[in-house]
Amino acid sequence: MQEPQDFDQTHQTLQEVSNALDSGMFVHVRRLLQDMEPEDIAHLLEASPRKSRNVLWQLTDPEDYGEILDELSEDVKDGIVSRMAPESIAEATEGMETDDVAYVLRSLPDDVSREVLSQMDTVDRFRVETALSYPEDTAGGMMNTDFITIRADVEIDVVLRYLRMKGDLPESTDALYVLDEESRLIGHLSLTTLLTTQQDTLVREVMDDADEAIPVNTDDGEVANLFERRNWVSAPVVDENHLLLGRITIDDVVDVIREDAEHSMMSMAGMDDEEDTFAPVVKSARRRSVWLGMNVLAALAAASVSNMFEATLAQMASIAVLMTIVPSMGGVAGNQTVALVIRGLAVGHIGDSNQKELLLKEAGIGLLNGILWASIIGGIVMVWKGDIMLGAIISAAMLVNLTVAGVAGVAIPVLLKKMNIDPALAGGMALTTITDIIGLSAFLGLATILM
Amino acid sequence: MQEPQDFDQTHQTLQEVSNALDSGMFVHVRRLLQDMEPEDIAHLLEASPRKSRNVLWQLTDPEDYGEILDELSEDVKDGIVSRMAPESIAEATEGMETDDVAYVLRSLPDDVSREVLSQMDTVDRFRVETALSYPEDTAGGMMNTDFITIRADVEIDVVLRYLRMKGDLPESTDALYVLDEESRLIGHLSLTTLLTTQQDTLVREVMDDADEAIPVNTDDGEVANLFERRNWVSAPVVDENHLLLGRITIDDVVDVIREDAEHSMMSMAGMDDEEDTFAPVVKSARRRSVWLGMNVLAALAAASVSNMFEATLAQMASIAVLMTIVPSMGGVAGNQTVALVIRGLAVGHIGDSNQKELLLKEAGIGLLNGILWASIIGGIVMVWKGDIMLGAIISAAMLVNLTVAGVAGVAIPVLLKKMNIDPALAGGMALTTITDIIGLSAFLGLATILM
Repeated sequence: MQEPQDFDQTHQTLQEVSNALDSGMFVHVRRLLQDMEPEDIAHLLEASPRKSRNVLWQLTDPEDYGEILDELSEDVKDGIVSRMAPESIAEATEGMETDDVAYVLRSLPDDVSREVLSQMDTVDRFRVETALSYPEDTAGGMMNTDFITIRADVEIDVVLRYLRMKGDLPESTDALYVLDEESRLIGHLSLTTLLTTQQDTLVREVMDDADEAIPVNTDDGEVANLFERRNWVSAPVVDENHLLLGRITIDDVVDVIREDAEHSMMSMAGMDDEEDTFAPVVKSARRRSVWLGMNVLAALAAASVSNMFEATLAQMASIAVLMTIVPSMGGVAGNQTVALVIRGLAVGHIGDSNQKELLLKEAGIGLLNGILWASIIGGIVMVWKGDIMLGAIISAAMLVNLTVAGVAGVAIPVLLKKMNIDPALAGGMALTTITDIIGLSAFLGLATILM
Repeated sequence: MQEPQDFDQTHQTLQEVSNALDSGMFVHVRRLLQDMEPEDIAHLLEASPRKSRNVLWQLTDPEDYGEILDELSEDVKDGIVSRMAPESIAEATEGMETDDVAYVLRSLPDDVSREVLSQMDTVDRFRVETALSYPEDTAGGMMNTDFITIRADVEIDVVLRYLRMKGDLPESTDALYVLDEESRLIGHLSLTTLLTTQQDTLVREVMDDADEAIPVNTDDGEVANLFERRNWVSAPVVDENHLLLGRITIDDVVDVIREDAEHSMMSMAGMDDEEDTFAPVVKSARRRSVWLGMNVLAALAAASVSNMFEATLAQMASIAVLMTIVPSMGGVAGNQTVALVIRGLAVGHIGDSNQKELLLKEAGIGLLNGILWASIIGGIVMVWKGDIMLGAIISAAMLVNLTVAGVAGVAIPVLLKKMNIDPALAGGMALTTITDIIGLSAFLGLATILM
């Protein structure tokens, strides 16, 4: 009997592979790789610095190339595929599911992709070209064309004999699709029903109807929400005439869920969510500098506000010392709201029907926390700087800024979404710019008027 | 034939329900709810302001309570369950999977939970108590006890007849588990194999071996990574003696993946990822104030740094005007790195074997972007303030701070993880504190020395 597997060995293997590579023991590495599953090799590649990746790829059995490529994140996959000859890519994609081949090909330059396609046999090429014709982020881009169809007027027994004759089912098959004479989807027969029904029953009598088929142009996030809510393992994809086009399986949905959630997190920090952990320095620096450039504008906007109050700052240095506190608190409080709203928009909890309640709620939270922290910071400043007026001013500015932060934290992502701008990407920085400007204006303005 | 379903109707329904509630048309609402799937009612509850939720719950068919509760997020579920009588909770959980009952009960006060358990029949109670005895965030807490077991020395035909006799299979069943005489797991037989194998074959000959069973104490994030990498639909859970304890299904894994990814995003913004979008104002304000309190300390630390340079600030107000720019850029650049590292740590791409490469890479990116933005901002300041020295000073401070941000962006999350502190929660604020202090010190320090 085998022991339960040790699941925490990636970095041990990685260390072993990395040591072996350093000492040029390529034969040993090749043997290590031969003992690994393709998905674990993919993981190893993702976790490897770039210089090791190419060597590892050379030492991997080309038989596994297809499966490994499918498991890699976009950036890492692109790096590897761009060094492969079209023939090797065509060879690697043999036997892969259609959507996975499309994933590999999508990032190739048009001429290379055409060359790869020309190496495939006609049926495969037609399928892949069809897959490539749908946008990547729709049901059409997610589906594959591996599925089993049956007729409604046959007995269960016939279906069972048909499957035994076939000898194999596509991966993640949990249902067979029932078509009418015009290839329209009229229902599906789950394997569970197939296995638990008496053999002389007609398919028509026990099949589930097809009202839950996914329209081919459904957005991938919506597909993921459906799978998550309905606990599906796979689902059929149909066109507007209910013709069966393909099948989406849960493994591809899981990738979408992971990517969408990562997208929110990475975007909020101003990162491209496709960025490879070990991307080349220059490429990463260039990508990230776009975001830094936006922040330069935001920072200069804040500095311009301060600049308007230069006279006040020149008169009292303690104002300058304290002026970063109010914007900082507003930015943090506002970003809490932005994160909540971005999540709510992503999962579909926030819409026209409840935005007003949300706005009032967040304004209320901002006001409450404003009162709390205005008192505390006001008190600290009074004691520290021995100046009651200064304490009162920072309190007032804090109260204003935290309330504004709550309102802006709801309004900004909702408005961005309405304008078809990704709220996760632009929300945080827009918010911070506003809380910086309001915070500085309130604090420096009050100080100018009152001191 | 039915039309493809309209999948974007939540907020229409929500609006309709909300209007009907406002005008007291409860019968109409009850009818609307009767036409909805439990998972869609759950979605409606999540998207409803709190005052509507209780009314909606009252108008929902109690038959659906169990399934709805299982689909709700923790905060929303807790709010509803806390108002239910123990008998109704016991009734609602009838027929639910064990892990789902445990999910509902976990958040109840001990005495209520004991009362609910006492209302269950003995077998159910024993199962649920077993589930509750495992930590929620392990394989044991995720598993349910609905599975079908068979022996190795029977023919496929016998298995098929056994299933037809049973008449039903547990949800998401894609394999039957093969046990030896001592109830140890020795293999599994996939439904696919069952359907495609000749009927006189022995189970032993076609079953897959059991080396991929999950140890019961495996962390839930690790379970999710395994499902994702191996494309599993379900997997058996065993103890150290390879006794079969339960089964984890992909729908629960999907929830973990979504929650883990949301956790990173929400934590980085200083939010509890369980926070209900429509949580009560006071409760939310209290939760969020903890994080704001941390930021007060960080902001005061930055103010203390400025305070050391009060004399310089008193002499030159333009220094005060510009002093927020360098910390701001450092914070943004550092948080880009932090987001990358947090994602890498979460999916297991970053470990002891590759931290050094990552540190060098991020320092390199910081240096490159430092050079770029130091030049640009230096230039802008020289022109704006007509002061070459001031431009040079802000350039030097920027270069230092962006390089430090790259290094700290890797080091902080990695160190926090080593100290068993959640890097997503503490990483961003620790980073910002450091880039604020270094940024202010560098800019104000150089200005004091050189001007």
